[in-house]
Amino acid sequence: MPFAGPLGQRRPLGVVGGMGSFATAKFLESLARKRRAEKDQDHIPYVALSLPDITDRSQAISEGSDAPLQRILERAHWLEQAGCGAIAIPCNTAHFWVGEIKQALSVALIDVTEITAKVICGRRDAAARELRLILLGTNATMQHSLYPQTNEKCFGEKFACCRAEFQREAVQIIADVKSGNAVEARPKLKQLVDQIRPFAPDAIILGCSELSAISDGLVDDDDIVIQSAFLLTPVLPGGKRKTSS
Amino acid sequence: MPFAGPLGQRRPLGVVGGMGSFATAKFLESLARKRRAEKDQDHIPYVALSLPDITDRSQAISEGSDAPLQRILERAHWLEQAGCGAIAIPCNTAHFWVGEIKQALSVALIDVTEITAKVICGRRDAAARELRLILLGTNATMQHSLYPQTNEKCFGEKFACCRAEFQREAVQIIADVKSGNAVEARPKLKQLVDQIRPFAPDAIILGCSELSAISDGLVDDDDIVIQSAFLLTPVLPGGKRKTSS
Repeated sequence: MPFAGPLGQRRPLGVVGGMGSFATAKFLESLARKRRAEKDQDHIPYVALSLPDITDRSQAISEGSDAPLQRILERAHWLEQAGCGAIAIPCNTAHFWVGEIKQALSVALIDVTEITAKVICGRRDAAARELRLILLGTNATMQHSLYPQTNEKCFGEKFACCRAEFQREAVQIIADVKSGNAVEARPKLKQLVDQIRPFAPDAIILGCSELSAISDGLVDDDDIVIQSAFLLTPVLPGGKRKTSS
Repeated sequence: MPFAGPLGQRRPLGVVGGMGSFATAKFLESLARKRRAEKDQDHIPYVALSLPDITDRSQAISEGSDAPLQRILERAHWLEQAGCGAIAIPCNTAHFWVGEIKQALSVALIDVTEITAKVICGRRDAAARELRLILLGTNATMQHSLYPQTNEKCFGEKFACCRAEFQREAVQIIADVKSGNAVEARPKLKQLVDQIRPFAPDAIILGCSELSAISDGLVDDDDIVIQSAFLLTPVLPGGKRKTSS
């Protein structure tokens, strides 16, 4: 039975947050910014459950553990039962379990990897040549192909030499943001992106919500840099919320 | 009976948000920034209920209506029943009803006006002279003495002449933020604060969550400008969450 709360007839978005807390807040800010609102009442309703006691996703995946999945499912179910019309998870690495999460929910999961792929494919030119993509994210996100085939071989030997160093730097920046050092992390991300731009990729995917979170001022409207976590805009069901089981 | 959800033994902060949505996100960001966290798991757990269909507080107060109070109470009760250990409302004007809200809750309401007063009094010098304060906020916040006596007469005739214009500008900036124009609003707030600084107040209270929300870069650590909405740091009960009624 849905929780008899005050959520009203307009089903809110459910946000499984806390992975991490700063990135969740910046995602919620992006929701408020994107909405063409004239006043408070026009904004997207949401319930954000930011309970950060979820095992580190990247580490769990590297150890072959599903521990975070159980916690994520508990929270997503709680939001679903509370009456949310769709679920968003502003943590790219958590999408490693996207199949299991979708299967467990009766409402839609807004899938960051799917939306990012759509946005990138939407930019494909008429020649439909293979896109040259560079992904930045946690080690688990990099190793488990959560994103469209990035085919990094096309960037040549010089890029291959720098790749491990770029990844170390990305992981350090993510850790900085998680530990509250967003101010210091921002110029580091700019520097990293500036080192990557000369390889002329079609897109640089910020495939971690911490990277999107500190990318303001770094990304123009038509930039090749994709703030994947900010693409999670909900298309909430227009229908009325169920009020009984 | 508390909702049998996944909130665990560490009682989260309950946030009655959506007044407005951008300000709520910036408040949640301030929570993440303030926490001395090394990793995701160290951050403050919270449940944010951002359902923005609450009547405009300033307008309701000016019309003598209590309509927003009912909605605020519903949401606060919902968070309390879900197991939250304390409630924060990142909307200064909503604190017009602070007495009614505190009385209705069995958990603590973190009171923005009380905390702001404490911070300002903590800065009082040894001479304990009367503090010279200037408040910026919605019309209702200004008219109903939600903050310590600001005694604006001490700023003289020139200030009195500008006061109405300053207030119009503050209300316009608040509306800009609510309608998604934070980027344009930020320099306007800086200009307004710069016009006020020469009157040499002991503190300029940003007494509206929209003003705090756009004040980054405007306020130094020891600044006289008080970001009141960001003072809402929870002191959550250490005790275990009740798991039965």
